[in-house]
Amino acid sequence: MPEKNQNIDEMTIWEDAKQMLRKAEKENIETAWDRLQKQTPHCQFGEGGICCRICTMGPCRIGKKASRGVCGADADVIVARNFGRFITGGAAGHSDHGRDCIEALHAVAHGETKDYEIKDKEKLLRIAEEVGINTNDRDYLDVAKDLAAEFFENYGTTKGAVSFASRVPEKRKELWSSLGITPRGVDREIAEMMHRTHMGCDNDAANTMLHAARTCLADGWAGSMIATEISDILFGTPSPRKAKVNLGVLKEDQVNILVHGHNPIVSEKILEAVNDPELVALAKEKGASGINLAGLCCTGNELMMRRGIPMAGNHLMTELAIITGAVEMIIVDYQCIMPSLVQVGSCYHTKMITTADKAKFTGAEHVKFEMHNGMEQARKVVRKAVELYEFRDRNRVQIPGEPVDIMTGFSNEALLQALGGSLTPLIDAIKAGKVRGAVGIVGCNNPKYKHDHCNVNLAKELIKRDILVLATGCVTTATGKAGLLVPEAIDTAGPGLKEVCGSLGIPPVLHMGSCVDNARILQLCALLASEIGVDISDLPVAASSPEWYSEKAAAIGTYAVASGIYTHLGHPPNITGSKLVTNLALSGLDDLLGACFVVEPDPFKAAELIDKRIGAKRTALGLV
Amino acid sequence: MPEKNQNIDEMTIWEDAKQMLRKAEKENIETAWDRLQKQTPHCQFGEGGICCRICTMGPCRIGKKASRGVCGADADVIVARNFGRFITGGAAGHSDHGRDCIEALHAVAHGETKDYEIKDKEKLLRIAEEVGINTNDRDYLDVAKDLAAEFFENYGTTKGAVSFASRVPEKRKELWSSLGITPRGVDREIAEMMHRTHMGCDNDAANTMLHAARTCLADGWAGSMIATEISDILFGTPSPRKAKVNLGVLKEDQVNILVHGHNPIVSEKILEAVNDPELVALAKEKGASGINLAGLCCTGNELMMRRGIPMAGNHLMTELAIITGAVEMIIVDYQCIMPSLVQVGSCYHTKMITTADKAKFTGAEHVKFEMHNGMEQARKVVRKAVELYEFRDRNRVQIPGEPVDIMTGFSNEALLQALGGSLTPLIDAIKAGKVRGAVGIVGCNNPKYKHDHCNVNLAKELIKRDILVLATGCVTTATGKAGLLVPEAIDTAGPGLKEVCGSLGIPPVLHMGSCVDNARILQLCALLASEIGVDISDLPVAASSPEWYSEKAAAIGTYAVASGIYTHLGHPPNITGSKLVTNLALSGLDDLLGACFVVEPDPFKAAELIDKRIGAKRTALGLV
Repeated sequence: MPEKNQNIDEMTIWEDAKQMLRKAEKENIETAWDRLQKQTPHCQFGEGGICCRICTMGPCRIGKKASRGVCGADADVIVARNFGRFITGGAAGHSDHGRDCIEALHAVAHGETKDYEIKDKEKLLRIAEEVGINTNDRDYLDVAKDLAAEFFENYGTTKGAVSFASRVPEKRKELWSSLGITPRGVDREIAEMMHRTHMGCDNDAANTMLHAARTCLADGWAGSMIATEISDILFGTPSPRKAKVNLGVLKEDQVNILVHGHNPIVSEKILEAVNDPELVALAKEKGASGINLAGLCCTGNELMMRRGIPMAGNHLMTELAIITGAVEMIIVDYQCIMPSLVQVGSCYHTKMITTADKAKFTGAEHVKFEMHNGMEQARKVVRKAVELYEFRDRNRVQIPGEPVDIMTGFSNEALLQALGGSLTPLIDAIKAGKVRGAVGIVGCNNPKYKHDHCNVNLAKELIKRDILVLATGCVTTATGKAGLLVPEAIDTAGPGLKEVCGSLGIPPVLHMGSCVDNARILQLCALLASEIGVDISDLPVAASSPEWYSEKAAAIGTYAVASGIYTHLGHPPNITGSKLVTNLALSGLDDLLGACFVVEPDPFKAAELIDKRIGAKRTALGLV
Repeated sequence: MPEKNQNIDEMTIWEDAKQMLRKAEKENIETAWDRLQKQTPHCQFGEGGICCRICTMGPCRIGKKASRGVCGADADVIVARNFGRFITGGAAGHSDHGRDCIEALHAVAHGETKDYEIKDKEKLLRIAEEVGINTNDRDYLDVAKDLAAEFFENYGTTKGAVSFASRVPEKRKELWSSLGITPRGVDREIAEMMHRTHMGCDNDAANTMLHAARTCLADGWAGSMIATEISDILFGTPSPRKAKVNLGVLKEDQVNILVHGHNPIVSEKILEAVNDPELVALAKEKGASGINLAGLCCTGNELMMRRGIPMAGNHLMTELAIITGAVEMIIVDYQCIMPSLVQVGSCYHTKMITTADKAKFTGAEHVKFEMHNGMEQARKVVRKAVELYEFRDRNRVQIPGEPVDIMTGFSNEALLQALGGSLTPLIDAIKAGKVRGAVGIVGCNNPKYKHDHCNVNLAKELIKRDILVLATGCVTTATGKAGLLVPEAIDTAGPGLKEVCGSLGIPPVLHMGSCVDNARILQLCALLASEIGVDISDLPVAASSPEWYSEKAAAIGTYAVASGIYTHLGHPPNITGSKLVTNLALSGLDDLLGACFVVEPDPFKAAELIDKRIGAKRTALGLV
């Protein structure tokens, strides 16, 4: 039973969330906030990263009683090993998602599916040429075959560097090479990290941390980047469009289906199925006025970026969306899907459908989506959703408020187009100080924070300071709900940013996609650095994940730093039990990589720190 | 400072170990036993596997206060995720070692090194043909190029099954296919497991456990098997030879060098260097009568199997070997090397040399061994060792006892040769009940047990019951020191086994190699099953790891079970916090896979349980 003695006003900044938290309280439904309360205080050994379960001579803990584990590992080694495995979980998540995208491209190229196709042939050919594939006078499907094969190689052992290392500025590539952290292959770095962290392998914390950087670089510049590029090729490269966000996107008189997870391969088919006239007719037969599809988290971001599908909410809204009582079905692929959604759904008529063999949920119905049957399975599950409509308990339905407008779709291609085809106007604006710099605010929610308080306020503070904000992942919903993702938001920006965004007709916070799409931001930084002729670490840019919770966020932060981007986190990963590792993260990496982490839970103070760093980078470039 | 209030007689069964433990006590040197004492009692959440640190909404613990983590994961999901990552560490260790072997084969084939060569061309050609490579009228180096390429593919994404799946009996392959656990690629399964165990992916414990099986099968039938086969090709396939074992192999009047780790690539070069006349002369110049090389753990097994190099000790003897005061240098590659060896070495003149970038030790000297410079680096470090001889404090030297004779070198090829070229005599002996069955006793030491008590007594009890024992890893040293690895040991065996081994001139306990060489046992089981026309799970065989500690041992146990081999463990992995997972391991898997785990710390009771299982399998086959 939930312990309901928390102050809901302190739990979230959003009215839609507060209404649902009150409803949960009334209906006695447990949420993440309740479970956090039961899990508090957390184990301090775990929080410090100084608990080791890597072999059964333990488990061991470092503290006053013992300064070393049974094997002899000290706090530094234990923290580094744990952190190494932590980011590996994140890198593997993004990258295995990328692998699924390659398999989809391969299937399309080889004619193994009629359910998917190549929507952006121009991008296919452009990317193929970029990685050295001949496209002259060739059938585009043959090119796609070669591109899939090239990308598969990025997961193997025989490459010296991943394909998109070619995008990295020369100075950075030389630095990686000198440190031995050029990413060779996605799976290889992952497997090597798991090997290194076995008992009796890597017992030098700094050495382990360097391989953590390499593993994350393989994520950023291969796994994630491949996922993004193939998703664009298969489903279309995003361009600016309007959408809506918050729980108000659910419709009282329609069948509501939520898609949740990360990979567009399932959700794109669901989108087609909800528009199937036969299924829409069935919905009407059942008394609904139609079928309403809305997104959650990154699968939501993917659909929003390319199709303008509304976004119901971010990580901490996923349980609350079901608590509206108005959701017939939640269809998930993988990652960041709280296991609790099965339990919350069971309090209503809401059915949860899992679609990937690698992400089954006890209590959910599994409908396996494969390349050859995606459309058939999509129709099947949408039909099930429609049939659930009549079981909705209208007395328990409460859909809060009105949705907020947003503008989405800022792929790099779209951004370049908005700039008139070249980065020069942006670089000129940066040089002139109208845009003082750019910060990617990315990642998650975490019930340890007042929900979205940091995400929103950091964005607000930065744009006030003429710093352009690029948002992905769960920060999209946060900044969107706060009204920052529309062109009109320039009124809350500093004068320079207001002028530049105003003239381009773009918002001061640009939605660049899902979590894997942070690869777009990496590429943009690389393009800017190469254009100016500097390293990425010389640019007046930063990254931030104020309310992160996930291993993927830690992997993103690590590849950002290893790529030369100063990175703010709202709280540290579980490394504070080692001074060596903590100092390395917070300053030592700056000497090695030209960038480091900074930890600050207060968004206003964080804005100051980021602003100061951007100022220093501007000064070093001779800019005011 | 060590707390010395333990009863040394209860800590180990060995006289050499007891002498060194007393010396450690006198000299105030901390050992694994001391650290275990400080780490006891262990965290019960950790031991039960119900502590989760997979995201920073936690760390979470399942207990009376909370039945779910912040995300909603229950004990089953948390245990399965933790176990999934645990075996992944093990599978990655073996398999990344295998990758290094492929890189060595590739380098030799492509003429990139003069330091290594192909010693067993017959095996090269045989294995190449087995995996479908044309060998007719081809230069053996060209064949080697293709074989390296084929093996690299085993680490990639594009294969439907690893190459050596061809060795698996048809029934077993069909079972794997029906369960969706056919291993596709080594790194792929590893990365997928890390992905599945990210927050919000696989939240069905049984589903996660199935992927654990798949990941381990990729280890056993690819990563480990490739490591073994290539090591034979590069360094020679082992054949029976004599060697010696225990701390008595160290020599008071010689420069003593220990090699420790797993991969023969470094230690084989060290062996050449210690026989370099120039370095031997230098040793004599320094007052030593020569240079003595001895092995520890699996690098020791590799050198012993192929060259008869003496073995100083197993896992718990590694610190104690240094405490003799007679070791100038310990040269390590990777895995199972206690970080404490640096500290123990620093109490003497003993220098520790690390050789692999993926396994550096703070405080040790790093001398990177690469394919092109292995010999040069080996000479360099052996010279350093020789120069340390004069710094040995003769007053602190104590080398206990006399070494024990053993017979080693039982590769499958050697075993077949001993049997006269075919398995028929062994099968006939099994059918006749002279050899009632066979058990692989493998793996480690763990200071939680009286050192080698279970390893030795289980072996003794089984051979008494006419059950042939196959030993690898640290069990080699245990059974060797107990006098079981010589033909004369048949006197302690049952009458049937005595007769069969006696007529073949082999010991009742056969040393089959290092930990990766458990792949030899897998292959042997597959050969037996195919020859008889049954599944592996129908054979009267079992596996056991009585004193295991390592993630690799858990991976080995899991691939044994998934291959159909009933597997005994002295203690469970950290899964007991989930009834579902525990029941699956101890019985549910028997229905799914025809084999399961059994946990029993007492070696005499374990022998009974294994005997009973073998009896049941014999009955099912219609044998008495």
